[in-house]
Amino acid sequence: MSLLNETLSTIRPVDADLLARAQAKLDSKTKPLGSLGRLEEFARRYAAISGSLTPDTWKKVVFTFAADHGVVEEGVSAFPKEVTAQMVFNFLAGGAGINVLANHVRAEVLVVDMGVDYDFGDTPGLIGRKIARGTRNMAKGPAMTREEAIAALEVGIELANGCRSEGIAMAGTGEMGIANTTAASAIIAAFSGCSVAEVTHRGTGINDEALTHKVRVIEQALAVNRPDPKDPIDVLAKVGGLEIAGIAGLVLGCAANRIPVVVDGFISTAGALIASELHPNVNEYLFAAHQSVEIGHRVMLERIGAEPILDLRLRLGEGTGAALAMGLIEAGVKILKEMATFEEAGVAEGEY
Amino acid sequence: MSLLNETLSTIRPVDADLLARAQAKLDSKTKPLGSLGRLEEFARRYAAISGSLTPDTWKKVVFTFAADHGVVEEGVSAFPKEVTAQMVFNFLAGGAGINVLANHVRAEVLVVDMGVDYDFGDTPGLIGRKIARGTRNMAKGPAMTREEAIAALEVGIELANGCRSEGIAMAGTGEMGIANTTAASAIIAAFSGCSVAEVTHRGTGINDEALTHKVRVIEQALAVNRPDPKDPIDVLAKVGGLEIAGIAGLVLGCAANRIPVVVDGFISTAGALIASELHPNVNEYLFAAHQSVEIGHRVMLERIGAEPILDLRLRLGEGTGAALAMGLIEAGVKILKEMATFEEAGVAEGEY
Repeated sequence: MSLLNETLSTIRPVDADLLARAQAKLDSKTKPLGSLGRLEEFARRYAAISGSLTPDTWKKVVFTFAADHGVVEEGVSAFPKEVTAQMVFNFLAGGAGINVLANHVRAEVLVVDMGVDYDFGDTPGLIGRKIARGTRNMAKGPAMTREEAIAALEVGIELANGCRSEGIAMAGTGEMGIANTTAASAIIAAFSGCSVAEVTHRGTGINDEALTHKVRVIEQALAVNRPDPKDPIDVLAKVGGLEIAGIAGLVLGCAANRIPVVVDGFISTAGALIASELHPNVNEYLFAAHQSVEIGHRVMLERIGAEPILDLRLRLGEGTGAALAMGLIEAGVKILKEMATFEEAGVAEGEY
Repeated sequence: MSLLNETLSTIRPVDADLLARAQAKLDSKTKPLGSLGRLEEFARRYAAISGSLTPDTWKKVVFTFAADHGVVEEGVSAFPKEVTAQMVFNFLAGGAGINVLANHVRAEVLVVDMGVDYDFGDTPGLIGRKIARGTRNMAKGPAMTREEAIAALEVGIELANGCRSEGIAMAGTGEMGIANTTAASAIIAAFSGCSVAEVTHRGTGINDEALTHKVRVIEQALAVNRPDPKDPIDVLAKVGGLEIAGIAGLVLGCAANRIPVVVDGFISTAGALIASELHPNVNEYLFAAHQSVEIGHRVMLERIGAEPILDLRLRLGEGTGAALAMGLIEAGVKILKEMATFEEAGVAEGEY
């Protein structure tokens, strides 16, 4: 059996009994019932996913997957393609937004080259898992072969399996890839049946004219490739991206390994959506970090049934929203683990 | 001149030039313009308030002001009055929600007895600034005298002045006081002219019948006392609370000392509203931590022109939302201070 199929066959629903026991433990804490709102949801779900009422949160990792996109040659981005590789060096040097924010929540950043159009050689610190030097131009044909898409998914799965063996408690997703909002919009259009215009936005900051052009390019890509929404790997291969495949694989692997996975914004959620379409129980293992400014994001989140944790008008990607959300999820888990009960504190309970 | 008047005369608008320079610095960082959304707003405002483009965030304090409310005898809360003092001991022992969350963001919790109906004697760790053993029952007459209200405001101001001398970079507000949502609803009803039912909710978790009763009690308090919305101290004295006065004073004092102040939920915002009504520039110094479940909170936030940072359905108080928000504000400041510029990282800028 392939690693992908083996992983899909391993994913189980989250333990409902543990969810209930975690909530009962939260209800014994010195606070009015339910008064910590979504922090209680985070704690309950994290405990049930991890299989413990005193789950660990110490080792946290954000995976920032990088890849290039052939469709960049259609002029869909405000930035030149070279920025993908330049930003990889910025991540490795510790100067990017994700470095600052991951450091703030005491998470490690691991940068994965899934398909940047640059020869990094033996660049220290980089996880080199290049499948190709970028995808092909989806406006003219499939972005990847089906084999490339599966190989990229399996990179993500292997990284999640590595998390289990390394004792990583919580994983976050992030990405870098000039033109990758184009791929993410194409993916949600393919699954949802929404018009391309309804799910396509300005990415790094293109103007009205460029946005109209971007919509036309995505429409063309869907017309040329006719991705089958019943076959998520077909969608991924034809209009996806290598970093999106890596994220999808990481999410699948985290679900299989019972590791809570925090999904960043628009592009990361496109990856999570591929995973979710491959296995419905995946949704129970993921946390949606934030509501992106990208208009297609809301459609994706509804489809996977996830309520975003933050709404700070972020649109940077890299895993920046995931890092911030990890801090809040960890806060919820600490409530479960560290807060005193009514009995311990000698506080009278309310009459409900 | 009294400490209150001296403080009011010291408050200035935030430096617009520094706001612009902070944004220019953010715009030089390796990210699309504005792509870190509200994190950039936090950083820009924090820098301008603090008077530095490399502001410090290290020493953070949450002040949890505790006091009792005479109106509790009308049966407006699900919890007995004794819980206020019991929770003070829980705060001092480190077992409450605020202790866990402040510790998570590396902030200190300082507990201030403004008016708990309990004799704490020389309890170690407690800041004893008791003005009275709780307010009087506002359903029957003024909660406080005008002199008590001013004395309580000045406690908050003195604590803010102490922050300046102790090198505290950022302050948060929190509170504990059984029945204090009743006072907070009365305050916003008095200022906004909204009906009491429009701004009154379930507090720690009362049922429909108790909510109807709570609305009637607040209506009675407003009818008996006729607080003058043009005289914020009159509103505070007649239908406020001692902890709410402490918070209002802290917010005034932080504005006077140019210390960013993070205002927690419904009751804390009632305090901030008193401060804001006393001096309009106060709004520029405060951050609204979160959108509370209490329905009157939205009306307050609109009145002070603040957009909440989080929306996690919290309704615990104590400063719990403020602690979480401080972590996010600090994240924004670190972006300003630590992230590499396009030039430093050798990354090409986009075409906007």
